[in-house]
Amino acid sequence: MKIAVDCLGGDNSPGANVEGAWLALQRHADLRVTLVGDEAGIERELERLGAARDRIEVVHAPEVITGEDKPTAAIRQKKDSSLIRSIQLLREDPETCALVSTGATGALVAAATLRIGRIRGIRRPAFCPILPTMTGGIVGICDSGANVDVLPEQLCQFAILGSRYLESAFGVRSPRVALLNVGVESEKGDELRKTAYPLLEATPGIRFVGNMESRDLLSGRYDLVVCDGFSGNVLIKTTEGTALELLKKIKRDIASKKRYMLGAWFMKRMFLEEKEFMNYQNYGGSVLLGAEKTVVKGHGSSDAAAVAKCVEQAVRMQQGGMNDKVRASLAEFEARRAGAAQAE
Amino acid sequence: MKIAVDCLGGDNSPGANVEGAWLALQRHADLRVTLVGDEAGIERELERLGAARDRIEVVHAPEVITGEDKPTAAIRQKKDSSLIRSIQLLREDPETCALVSTGATGALVAAATLRIGRIRGIRRPAFCPILPTMTGGIVGICDSGANVDVLPEQLCQFAILGSRYLESAFGVRSPRVALLNVGVESEKGDELRKTAYPLLEATPGIRFVGNMESRDLLSGRYDLVVCDGFSGNVLIKTTEGTALELLKKIKRDIASKKRYMLGAWFMKRMFLEEKEFMNYQNYGGSVLLGAEKTVVKGHGSSDAAAVAKCVEQAVRMQQGGMNDKVRASLAEFEARRAGAAQAE
Repeated sequence: MKIAVDCLGGDNSPGANVEGAWLALQRHADLRVTLVGDEAGIERELERLGAARDRIEVVHAPEVITGEDKPTAAIRQKKDSSLIRSIQLLREDPETCALVSTGATGALVAAATLRIGRIRGIRRPAFCPILPTMTGGIVGICDSGANVDVLPEQLCQFAILGSRYLESAFGVRSPRVALLNVGVESEKGDELRKTAYPLLEATPGIRFVGNMESRDLLSGRYDLVVCDGFSGNVLIKTTEGTALELLKKIKRDIASKKRYMLGAWFMKRMFLEEKEFMNYQNYGGSVLLGAEKTVVKGHGSSDAAAVAKCVEQAVRMQQGGMNDKVRASLAEFEARRAGAAQAE
Repeated sequence: MKIAVDCLGGDNSPGANVEGAWLALQRHADLRVTLVGDEAGIERELERLGAARDRIEVVHAPEVITGEDKPTAAIRQKKDSSLIRSIQLLREDPETCALVSTGATGALVAAATLRIGRIRGIRRPAFCPILPTMTGGIVGICDSGANVDVLPEQLCQFAILGSRYLESAFGVRSPRVALLNVGVESEKGDELRKTAYPLLEATPGIRFVGNMESRDLLSGRYDLVVCDGFSGNVLIKTTEGTALELLKKIKRDIASKKRYMLGAWFMKRMFLEEKEFMNYQNYGGSVLLGAEKTVVKGHGSSDAAAVAKCVEQAVRMQQGGMNDKVRASLAEFEARRAGAAQAE
């Protein structure tokens, strides 16, 4: 199994990316990686780590695409960027099955969509980031921003993609799928939601449990939430933003009184654990589901451990044969739809 | 000034509603209230409080509309409900200028929209709840759920309504208005957002500061966020849900170790303050903006203090002449649009 690791564009690149790849290599004997980026920088990091070179290749691509670059223009113009060369590798090398990047999201989505191709039948790939729930489990959100305008049948595709993903990458059995809505009753929501609800009920291969209000995201009652990329983006960024702002406020308030500082001294470990708990890096990257090959987007601020998690996520998806399972589910879904259309 | 208070339908009705009205009466000498609900229950509460009766009227309406009732059916069938009788009072009595309710939201929106009428030019009323920011200020969210499908020009109307509201009810000067979006760049978002952005830039009488990502809601950099009711609902419920879940988790974690319990003992007051800070009841009710008369929806779990806050909010809106200011802004907006259309 060969995985390409884009070693530029993250806040801690190339150090975190090279080290993360090396951590994953040590844990998976059948894994090989291709490190893509500035060769000199990568070599320096490998030397620092004292990494064995037998399962590592290096591809020189010194240009960087940043968040300020317009995605479509960057793809055309920055041909020597680590991101474009990584995508090229994924596209042209049959052995390379996945790409891990901590670089610019917009350019990654655009390049992957245009150059890698989608699983047959999938309208557009979708992101599925993972959050921790308050009961110790996880919940996936699909889509979280790759598609801001979506059709009802795309929500069914997100349900299929996310279900197969949670099964293969996280071992979740028969994931409970909910539709993000403004209320739990089946008739709630806008036109998109009202049309999607019965379609989701009729989608084979998923376990649809109805509508979910956003306040219940972390309740542990749902494994996967399907939504358009606009509201999914609001959902995940609000969750992260509120948790971080609240922890920051508590920190400020503690510093305001000696008595609180004393109390906090006893609770130091707990506060560190809360912070780690809400650190979404700990739950792996956001996978672009529906692409022909696996693309994992790690957070821009990923450290080596976070990059290693992204690489291992790709390993598990590959081992679990996720895309083949998606194809089987899609075929069933399309057959059902064709049957329904004929019956009308 | 006369305000109707719906005394049924809330979790703590009629006690909290009657007591809240009485608290507000004591603070505003020119205020009169009409308590609508089960007469015997209201009388009992008034007696318990020893309330002076000179500025209080009671209207008997014993039926309750609950969250389980279908709004449109409830409006037609439950004619003797406190909610419908309150709306009737607001519609027919020229002296009654506002209604405060802690009852079923759907029925309240439907009844207000159908029976009270809108300010001329407003397509549909919108909710504008208020949240505290981490810098000690407040931020309004308009719309938060009354309109799940909206047009770009409605977002401009939400900006006008919300701006005049924040000025008259909270004394915010020249509120900074942001458009909820998936990124801050002007070209971000779906079709609705892309169309609305330049319209908002051209809207007179508001201070549009660009796009806002949901993670910055509590940053204190914005006074008003405009959005469709679907994503606004996700925004506010996620914020409340995450904060509550996180505080609950911290509470559980504290109970897990003696050492943490000791530390928390020193910080008891701080944790109570955090809880109060995130208690959205403290920031008043959600006002249905754009209706001809003021409708304030308090949270279902409102206590007496929260109901009093809702009544006083209505008093300030009335004193500030909010709807007249909205009419002036709308006239300016329409004139600008007519001018732009002519120029094309």
